[in-house]
Amino acid sequence: MGSDTDLLVMKDAAKILDMFGVTHEVKIVSAHRTPEMMYTYATSAHSRGVQVIIAGAGGAAHLPGMVASLTPLPVIGVPVQATRLDGVDSLLSIVQMPRGVPVATVAINNATNAALLAVRMLGISDNDLVSRMRQYQEDMRDENLNKGEKLETQGWESYLNQ
Amino acid sequence: MGSDTDLLVMKDAAKILDMFGVTHEVKIVSAHRTPEMMYTYATSAHSRGVQVIIAGAGGAAHLPGMVASLTPLPVIGVPVQATRLDGVDSLLSIVQMPRGVPVATVAINNATNAALLAVRMLGISDNDLVSRMRQYQEDMRDENLNKGEKLETQGWESYLNQ
Amino acid sequence: MGSDTDLLVMKDAAKILDMFGVTHEVKIVSAHRTPEMMYTYATSAHSRGVQVIIAGAGGAAHLPGMVASLTPLPVIGVPVQATRLDGVDSLLSIVQMPRGVPVATVAINNATNAALLAVRMLGISDNDLVSRMRQYQEDMRDENLNKGEKLETQGWESYLNQ
Amino acid sequence: MGSDTDLLVMKDAAKILDMFGVTHEVKIVSAHRTPEMMYTYATSAHSRGVQVIIAGAGGAAHLPGMVASLTPLPVIGVPVQATRLDGVDSLLSIVQMPRGVPVATVAINNATNAALLAVRMLGISDNDLVSRMRQYQEDMRDENLNKGEKLETQGWESYLNQ
Amino acid sequence: MGSDTDLLVMKDAAKILDMFGVTHEVKIVSAHRTPEMMYTYATSAHSRGVQVIIAGAGGAAHLPGMVASLTPLPVIGVPVQATRLDGVDSLLSIVQMPRGVPVATVAINNATNAALLAVRMLGISDNDLVSRMRQYQEDMRDENLNKGEKLETQGWESYLNQ
Amino acid sequence: MGSDTDLLVMKDAAKILDMFGVTHEVKIVSAHRTPEMMYTYATSAHSRGVQVIIAGAGGAAHLPGMVASLTPLPVIGVPVQATRLDGVDSLLSIVQMPRGVPVATVAINNATNAALLAVRMLGISDNDLVSRMRQYQEDMRDENLNKGEKLETQGWESYLNQ
Amino acid sequence: MGSDTDLLVMKDAAKILDMFGVTHEVKIVSAHRTPEMMYTYATSAHSRGVQVIIAGAGGAAHLPGMVASLTPLPVIGVPVQATRLDGVDSLLSIVQMPRGVPVATVAINNATNAALLAVRMLGISDNDLVSRMRQYQEDMRDENLNKGEKLETQGWESYLNQ
Amino acid sequence: MGSDTDLLVMKDAAKILDMFGVTHEVKIVSAHRTPEMMYTYATSAHSRGVQVIIAGAGGAAHLPGMVASLTPLPVIGVPVQATRLDGVDSLLSIVQMPRGVPVATVAINNATNAALLAVRMLGISDNDLVSRMRQYQEDMRDENLNKGEKLETQGWESYLNQ
Repeated sequence: MGSDTDLLVMKDAAKILDMFGVTHEVKIVSAHRTPEMMYTYATSAHSRGVQVIIAGAGGAAHLPGMVASLTPLPVIGVPVQATRLDGVDSLLSIVQMPRGVPVATVAINNATNAALLAVRMLGISDNDLVSRMRQYQEDMRDENLNKGEKLETQGWESYLNQ
Repeated sequence: MGSDTDLLVMKDAAKILDMFGVTHEVKIVSAHRTPEMMYTYATSAHSRGVQVIIAGAGGAAHLPGMVASLTPLPVIGVPVQATRLDGVDSLLSIVQMPRGVPVATVAINNATNAALLAVRMLGISDNDLVSRMRQYQEDMRDENLNKGEKLETQGWESYLNQ
Repeated sequence: MGSDTDLLVMKDAAKILDMFGVTHEVKIVSAHRTPEMMYTYATSAHSRGVQVIIAGAGGAAHLPGMVASLTPLPVIGVPVQATRLDGVDSLLSIVQMPRGVPVATVAINNATNAALLAVRMLGISDNDLVSRMRQYQEDMRDENLNKGEKLETQGWESYLNQ
Repeated sequence: MGSDTDLLVMKDAAKILDMFGVTHEVKIVSAHRTPEMMYTYATSAHSRGVQVIIAGAGGAAHLPGMVASLTPLPVIGVPVQATRLDGVDSLLSIVQMPRGVPVATVAINNATNAALLAVRMLGISDNDLVSRMRQYQEDMRDENLNKGEKLETQGWESYLNQ
Repeated sequence: MGSDTDLLVMKDAAKILDMFGVTHEVKIVSAHRTPEMMYTYATSAHSRGVQVIIAGAGGAAHLPGMVASLTPLPVIGVPVQATRLDGVDSLLSIVQMPRGVPVATVAINNATNAALLAVRMLGISDNDLVSRMRQYQEDMRDENLNKGEKLETQGWESYLNQ
Repeated sequence: MGSDTDLLVMKDAAKILDMFGVTHEVKIVSAHRTPEMMYTYATSAHSRGVQVIIAGAGGAAHLPGMVASLTPLPVIGVPVQATRLDGVDSLLSIVQMPRGVPVATVAINNATNAALLAVRMLGISDNDLVSRMRQYQEDMRDENLNKGEKLETQGWESYLNQ
Repeated sequence: MGSDTDLLVMKDAAKILDMFGVTHEVKIVSAHRTPEMMYTYATSAHSRGVQVIIAGAGGAAHLPGMVASLTPLPVIGVPVQATRLDGVDSLLSIVQMPRGVPVATVAINNATNAALLAVRMLGISDNDLVSRMRQYQEDMRDENLNKGEKLETQGWESYLNQ
Repeated sequence: MGSDTDLLVMKDAAKILDMFGVTHEVKIVSAHRTPEMMYTYATSAHSRGVQVIIAGAGGAAHLPGMVASLTPLPVIGVPVQATRLDGVDSLLSIVQMPRGVPVATVAINNATNAALLAVRMLGISDNDLVSRMRQYQEDMRDENLNKGEKLETQGWESYLNQ
């Protein structure tokens, strides 16, 4: 991530990766404040054994795109709301990359989905992760079904008053 | 893709996948016009051996998100400009997915990057693809350097008059 | 509705339907988390005797459009503000449907109007509902006229200080 | 519709209603240029036997909302692109109605969907229209499936070169 | 104004008109909830001796434009922030009027400027009002100059700590 | 107007003023290119007998607001589309004036309405102009009614094929 | 700055200039409330020895552009969030200047960057300022590296709980 | 500039610099396609004697911000319209820089102003450039005055028919 203020958003990615048992590192690498470090980090990531990079940044968010230009690895970009523009500036700065350098962009502040996307990518060559992703999807479904049953049993008025 | 009118955009993905030697299929699967087919396609994709799905759609673009909810595979969404809103409706319909169901979104109409992203994902377990991606990045760099040299040699006025 | 967090908005629809004596059911059906249930719900609604479906969802809001593609019934979509984009993402995801699959979209978070629209639709073949709708419109008018008279009698300063 | 320039868009609604055998009238009723006529039209529509009103307008599009305030019938609004703002002004002027007066809004310039929505509304009490709507949906599906088969048989390159 | 909730914004207009000694009436006239009253109000305003109408409304704000279509008087529109869209929906619904029916639109929630604009209009045939407007502008200038002097005398740090 | 390129839009105002027999002058006064001339023009307008100022400008459109700050006369602002932002930049630069300095803003590129608004303002003290404005409104109504009748007589298909 | 309410934002510029030892003055000069003062200020700035002007303003923000039209000095514009539009109106009013009159625009509310930009401009002929800017950039880098090390040493959970 | 397609826009900067006799180089340096070259270019610019850098880029435009993070020189950013979003993505990607790394942003596609801004910056220590800038401003004024006189002499109708 580009700044420690992004951590409040990006911690959700760490939680998901922990839940799926995916080894990961959490780092502050700023495209604008530590460009050399970003350069070193991105160019060495593949040889260090990194398989997917998740980059979150706000405002004029250049980190995901710059990292993507310096590595052949898949890079996932998380637009972080950091200015008065509700994250629209981050979203456009990350998703509107020119032909040749892709960034896999997720929803504003949605680091959860960034990590789930990373798990799906890693699942291409790891059937165990695919099984866990299926289980995650089933759990999500069951949780929704349970809420739905509860809502129908209780009626919406008592459901809301809980 | 959701409609054959998207083909003018999505063909760029097929070209990139051909260039990288990645086997792929090009299909019309509409979330709104053929929902059953979409259901069957998405739920069976993993068992059929599909590893990554690229879904392009315009307007209220539901195809990428719906497919992502029906498969554990990584899904890449291409917002296609199909209405008067310059693709902003497609972009938001694809990227703003709720927590739990990620779509890897690329720039509006940028099917080239969708395919390059798929190649990077597949490269996680295929070193040969990583090498080709590095080569692609180097070729892109060289092409830019050549243009730059030509521009400096010729001057911008004759460069423009070619 | 797609999630129980939408209930705070969607409960206004239930209130209106109660007021008009229209039988209804309140359900959680998520396009992304319970796609099979959505499929079953939407395809069986007409044969179960459902006459109008109101679907509320936020962010990349696919529920109303997907339901509309699976049923011949009229579907009313309520864009729910669920992300940092003030509901603009929901609005565009719901209203910008492609030719062939209509969703009757109301204002952001305006479940009241969704229910009033359902009542008007049902009134096409139920004169009693038309009379109640006229009465509702007259009550609304009278309430406004009363406020207006009070404002003119009291003056705006004391009206505000109440 | 509010102006004869809207006819280029609104004619698509007439075509669909013809296709479904739904009797209809095509009229120019401007909220701003002929407010008295709008008043008379809207207040008398129900007693004249009108069951659904489709109102298309551009820019500061007041026609659908004003008509909805003057009738207990369901009113469908079509935002027509008429200014430099791509129809965003029309869309917001039509969809963002206050609580109490609903307008069933469809996509910008999408008069086709307005008519399909009217057919679905009328289908609430007309099983024959429901059957035709199902048939329309199946035809749409088959057309898409045929295109899909053709695309797979021919390959995308020859499909594009037709 | 269209609703008594607009009074919190529109009261600023009454204050300015009081300050300039301009006779005025404060009324609730809703285009959507009391369309007949609006019709009567707008069509009779000129013969009743009204010279300028200030109309404030939020969301799909139809009041200013509808009143302008029913009177030859100048109509000033105040977009009131009433929905989640920051007043953009009101602004576009008021300002984007079609050729033929003008509304003099001021900034979102800026009822102060609506009243100042009315005073300037009335000043066309009332030199006393022109003098008061000049005085108002001079007072505004002097207040700013005083603040500026105070800021320079105190320095910005103590100025902020007051 | 700020530039002679605005003339293509602003000429519509001159036409309306000619039609209503309102004396007027057409001038190029740029806030940015001829600030001194703008200052002289705006500060002397009232004493020269000018009664209303119509100012059209594009992009960062400062002319209407600056003129309004230098005169007690009513100033009408016409946002002219001059950049790639569809006139949104002009609209916001003109309409979002701070408290104290009002600009009567009309729709993007709608110089017709600017002139009609000026006529309405001048009508406050000129009953003849009020009569002409009423006639203009009636003519507009009749023209619309005629089009409507023609449409109903001919049917929309032949109406479109004219 | 245009108003003393802008001081809460603009004070950040004064802090940076103090830090770099750059002499400066903090003034309230409103384009709309004190246009003569603005004129005098801008036209005399160069002869008074001013080298760079930083102008902050909100809403329809005309100050930076008007000052730039009256001086040959570089003018830096700070869009201040002052209305309900999140500063978008200020940003467009400042940045979208026509050809001929440039304003160096920084991010919404980012007076810090305005001052840093001024320092960089002054550094063109002041090597000492360049050295201090390099030091500032290194300090920023070191602060980020320290945060990064702390994050890696502590882990993100304890880092967040500080 | 980031790509040779930007040259159609950026050539306007070269023309202005030629007109003012300011030595300059025109280069293609892509943040995404040639990141190493960008790094070398930006970090060596000051020691090579470069005094101001003008960087134009489109879409997710990272070049100006990245260069600014690697040099203590003033960097001017030109948002180039390169995608379907009218340059809004470029504008936000360039102007919304985080605190610490300023980019002097000009209007979308306005390379003319970028060069004029560079001239003003260089004028801080070059009185000759200040004189030429004043002359440029006077010429611009005179050209506008001439157009204005011609318009008044000819009348707008013959002016338009030239």
